[in-house]
Amino acid sequence: MQKPIVIALDAMGGDRGPEAVVGGAAQSLARHPDMRFLFVGDTSLVAPMFAQFPALSGRCEIEHAELSVSMHDKPSEALRRGRWKSSMWLAIEAVKTGRASFAVSGGNTGALMAMAKFCLKAMPGIERPAIAAIWPTVKAECLVLDVGATVEATAEQLVTFSFLGAAMARALQKRDRPIVALLNIGVEEVKGLDQIKRAHAQLRAMTLPFEYTGFVEGDGIGHDAADVVVTDGFTGNVAIKTAEGTAKQVGQYLRAAMEQSLLSQLGGFIAQDAFRVLKAKMDPRRSNGGVFLGLNGLVIKSHGGADATGYASAIDLGYDMARADLVERTRQDLAAIVTARAGGIGVAPAPAFGDNSGS
Amino acid sequence: MQKPIVIALDAMGGDRGPEAVVGGAAQSLARHPDMRFLFVGDTSLVAPMFAQFPALSGRCEIEHAELSVSMHDKPSEALRRGRWKSSMWLAIEAVKTGRASFAVSGGNTGALMAMAKFCLKAMPGIERPAIAAIWPTVKAECLVLDVGATVEATAEQLVTFSFLGAAMARALQKRDRPIVALLNIGVEEVKGLDQIKRAHAQLRAMTLPFEYTGFVEGDGIGHDAADVVVTDGFTGNVAIKTAEGTAKQVGQYLRAAMEQSLLSQLGGFIAQDAFRVLKAKMDPRRSNGGVFLGLNGLVIKSHGGADATGYASAIDLGYDMARADLVERTRQDLAAIVTARAGGIGVAPAPAFGDNSGS
Repeated sequence: MQKPIVIALDAMGGDRGPEAVVGGAAQSLARHPDMRFLFVGDTSLVAPMFAQFPALSGRCEIEHAELSVSMHDKPSEALRRGRWKSSMWLAIEAVKTGRASFAVSGGNTGALMAMAKFCLKAMPGIERPAIAAIWPTVKAECLVLDVGATVEATAEQLVTFSFLGAAMARALQKRDRPIVALLNIGVEEVKGLDQIKRAHAQLRAMTLPFEYTGFVEGDGIGHDAADVVVTDGFTGNVAIKTAEGTAKQVGQYLRAAMEQSLLSQLGGFIAQDAFRVLKAKMDPRRSNGGVFLGLNGLVIKSHGGADATGYASAIDLGYDMARADLVERTRQDLAAIVTARAGGIGVAPAPAFGDNSGS
Repeated sequence: MQKPIVIALDAMGGDRGPEAVVGGAAQSLARHPDMRFLFVGDTSLVAPMFAQFPALSGRCEIEHAELSVSMHDKPSEALRRGRWKSSMWLAIEAVKTGRASFAVSGGNTGALMAMAKFCLKAMPGIERPAIAAIWPTVKAECLVLDVGATVEATAEQLVTFSFLGAAMARALQKRDRPIVALLNIGVEEVKGLDQIKRAHAQLRAMTLPFEYTGFVEGDGIGHDAADVVVTDGFTGNVAIKTAEGTAKQVGQYLRAAMEQSLLSQLGGFIAQDAFRVLKAKMDPRRSNGGVFLGLNGLVIKSHGGADATGYASAIDLGYDMARADLVERTRQDLAAIVTARAGGIGVAPAPAFGDNSGS
């Protein structure tokens, strides 16, 4: 049997408190019996939750944390003020010290990223980390990054994100050479922002451990145009929220249409299994979990409002990546990019590469 | 009776040829009997279409054009090579000379914008024009601009887009003080790109002919967070295509779910009226038409693949704006912005304002 995967869980992050976190761990454990958990948080609040989940017995410990980071804390303040004592920091630190394979938190995204960067540091070759999201598509799913860590990205950063996303796709989707695209406003080479066109030229000129397919437009993401879609954090965040909003909007249209008459209500009743399938397919909890990529350790941001089912998705996601040894494999891939850049293979100057300050 | 509204139609733009354009005009005319049409294109192709639409008789003329701009022409080439003879140019010129109230073309967007800027010129106070799209929302609709004309926008350009969008909302939605928002990745003032934060500060400091409500995120657009959402052309284009793609994707999920069993098929059959309502609600032809704002004349870009129903939507849209005298009203609003900037009311230096070179 394989060595267990230990998961550090920030039990205080998220809007629903420790119950959703502990419940999520129990759901995940049922699917992966080789999981072990380190719950970090206020012992007096976390310990009473275990009574409901006997399966966790003997498979978890609690590390007491005096503080929890609030959703309103500015990242810089969260880092300064007593970070050593917060559940968020201690969960990340467990990854750094090797006690845990990865950490999951539903807390403040900015604070989590700031702490993860400070504690785990960026990998060699990484100037800025990225957050990757899982975007459900017609046929399967697409990884989209960055969705908010690096608001503005240079051409070189976009190239690095391609490597990070491809490594994640290999770990999750078990594809040898995932298909990677850059998000743009046209598929022609003349269109778009300058940094995207330059990233495109760099990717075309490099030897890559993935297939680079060129540009994809916003409507291609959900329609399986690529396994990985790369963009800056601003555009990625707007795109994913727009997609979430649109899916919800269409759901509202559908509900209103089905309620318009007795006949439509009857038809809806008869077809209720179909609507159940549709609802499950569109359940945002299924794709919960933003993965921080480019750090020396794996951290996953769960949606703050996630319930136990949502947390379990985020934990499952980390499990698959930890089993695939994502961090080590990413490091190997990045060695290739560092070599390519050092050799000046068709790339523009990238002064900050190799600078591991983590900014 | 009011003076008729004359519409110049590029009969050669669009993938379906003159038939869709002439058919669209006939549909629109049925709703607005005070419309008159100037079809610009190859007479030998356009004239035979009229036989099918007797209502157009006596309500239209044809202006012969020797050339049509292809979808593959680069804007600069389209402008240089025989532009004077193209149906696209001649339709725009009819607006300039006052023969038509507005022009509609389904041709190459880049060429149409290049010709419109060259022929009509930007209004005083406008550095870069914008394309506004109509985004269907849960309750009504939202105007989103820019969706592709100005790929990168400065803070000052975003402020101007707010004025342009608000003027259009007043004309279309008959709202005295439309609610305008800036698209961002968070509603807090600390988040987002620098130019967006600066535009926010400028709008907060100015006396405005609309309500400025602050930031909105991607999921707010379709959920009636504002009447007008302002962004740069890159982000707006990604957002609108992402929304279109997601709506289509959810439609595919729904179809698959309804076909999964005999029972769901039966339910779907009984509720078919509901699905018809849903389909009509989600019909992209209803919101066809990108409006070029900030020029001394009104030009509407129809989707290239639009059929007669789609063209009719674009023509209706222009009709409402022409009846509301959008161009003149926008000019008045912009006078306020020019004054505000000249007075230095809390705005950063905007060197290019007042420069009417139309870039």
